[in-house]
Amino acid sequence: MNRTIKAALAGDRRAMARLISRLEDDPRAARDIIPPIYAHSGQARVIGVTGAPGSGKSSLVARVAAEYRLRGRTVGIVAVDPTSPFSGGALLGDRIRTHALSGDPGIFFRSMATRGHLGGLARATADVVTLLDACGYERILVETTGAGQSEVDIASEAHTTLVLQTPGAGDDVQALKAGILEIADILVVNKADLDGADYTVAVLEATLSFRQPPSPADDSWPIPILRTVALDGRGIAELVDAVERHGAYLAQSGQRERLEQKRAAHRLRDMLQQELLARYVGRVGDQRLAEMARRVALRCTDPYSAVCALLQYETKAG
Amino acid sequence: MNRTIKAALAGDRRAMARLISRLEDDPRAARDIIPPIYAHSGQARVIGVTGAPGSGKSSLVARVAAEYRLRGRTVGIVAVDPTSPFSGGALLGDRIRTHALSGDPGIFFRSMATRGHLGGLARATADVVTLLDACGYERILVETTGAGQSEVDIASEAHTTLVLQTPGAGDDVQALKAGILEIADILVVNKADLDGADYTVAVLEATLSFRQPPSPADDSWPIPILRTVALDGRGIAELVDAVERHGAYLAQSGQRERLEQKRAAHRLRDMLQQELLARYVGRVGDQRLAEMARRVALRCTDPYSAVCALLQYETKAG
Repeated sequence: MNRTIKAALAGDRRAMARLISRLEDDPRAARDIIPPIYAHSGQARVIGVTGAPGSGKSSLVARVAAEYRLRGRTVGIVAVDPTSPFSGGALLGDRIRTHALSGDPGIFFRSMATRGHLGGLARATADVVTLLDACGYERILVETTGAGQSEVDIASEAHTTLVLQTPGAGDDVQALKAGILEIADILVVNKADLDGADYTVAVLEATLSFRQPPSPADDSWPIPILRTVALDGRGIAELVDAVERHGAYLAQSGQRERLEQKRAAHRLRDMLQQELLARYVGRVGDQRLAEMARRVALRCTDPYSAVCALLQYETKAG
Repeated sequence: MNRTIKAALAGDRRAMARLISRLEDDPRAARDIIPPIYAHSGQARVIGVTGAPGSGKSSLVARVAAEYRLRGRTVGIVAVDPTSPFSGGALLGDRIRTHALSGDPGIFFRSMATRGHLGGLARATADVVTLLDACGYERILVETTGAGQSEVDIASEAHTTLVLQTPGAGDDVQALKAGILEIADILVVNKADLDGADYTVAVLEATLSFRQPPSPADDSWPIPILRTVALDGRGIAELVDAVERHGAYLAQSGQRERLEQKRAAHRLRDMLQQELLARYVGRVGDQRLAEMARRVALRCTDPYSAVCALLQYETKAG
């Protein structure tokens, strides 16, 4: 095993940071880093935190991390900003400093940005989470911004996903989309001291009752709606309690196992796709693909016929 | 050629609506629908409109459509909501009725929702845009909500992308991410009659000046920042002027050709990946993939070694 990897597994934070940078910078680095550490992973509980900009995710994540430290848990934090090629997490970094967490060896914080393409970000995030997990961090908080596929992808890496809402006028309720609700294990109304919190909770309750037909299965998880004020810490202990309850539920119900398997299957398919395409392009040549794209762009052929032709060509040539 | 397709190309709106439903419902329908119509497409100008919930996209899209109708252009409108499995666009539908556009044969409006997976939505949207284009709609407005990859994917189908901002407090400025800026061809400060519009414009100007080093190239497009009040129509004519100017810029600079080619290449790679995986799974069997996923989930192997093993197995077996 590589020396840096060994050092990271032994708790060397600088080695960990170096490995993370390599995972971010070079998509192929994971092939060297992940295999030797993978067997050490699978212990951590991964908690996704998502919500619109301005919902107070950073403050909440810092508070939750601090609460976990009080409970003696080590915490890894990954801030992912799929909408920015710059390293996000500046705000979260501030919050972590505010709570005096940055000098704590039981906390590891890292922010990640896109650097090009987003599929890559989701994969790099998964690898970084695996690394933190293998290095012994017991709770891993993954903060993502925005609403959309990148979020759903990143949430799919989490065992427990918190979706933040804030009290607001009609416009904000619009942001409460069913797709986002579907990834939520726990709904958090943050800034619950603001006017309109009761209304937001009521809307969420109504939406949940509409979306969730009461299930007779004993092992179903009723999505709780919790109120927090991340700025002063109100409701954070209750939130962490709920996250832990959800973790216990996943383990007892067998859901965690099913989740891990589904995730592994999804990941394998994704990686296989990419590898199959890379091999195909290696065999057929970039040129042929570019030429076909030109023909599609000029409307000499359509994309569906083009793909057929490309694959038939190979069958014949092979 | 299929009768429904012929009817749609001849301007039959019900035939078009039926084809769109098929494109949404069945991923394989595109193989029958797109090839015969593709040669008719490539004439329309596709305009993406994106921005956070509450930024007034629906009102703006309806106003822009009405302005284009005044200028004698036919307009297709596609409202895409990547965060909801329900058909979005209810709001936009209302706006269209408000502006008495719904009875106008020069307008075609359709809202689309995810129905499962998001990759599918981006592809279905591209196909629907191709269909509207082939059926002769001259300007196609694609409205998307949220911030994230789905948006970037859908924006990549547009020739001109409008990014909406609204005046607001510090929190809102946070939403102005570089990644979203990067897809913008025109920045629109909507609700420009609200307090803080000057400040928002100033922030945008500062961000642009920071992001865009003044280029000596004559063919570069300086991203304009326009103010609109979609509710009463202020600034809409100027916005449509800017969109048309951008269209002329794309054509003259050769950018449109490059854009179309890049898009075609991206699409071919995406479709090839999927087809290669489908064929691979067909050859190797779902079982083998599921078994490997189980081993990854149990940490008996890691995803990278698993993919290697899967592909090696086939090489040997083949």
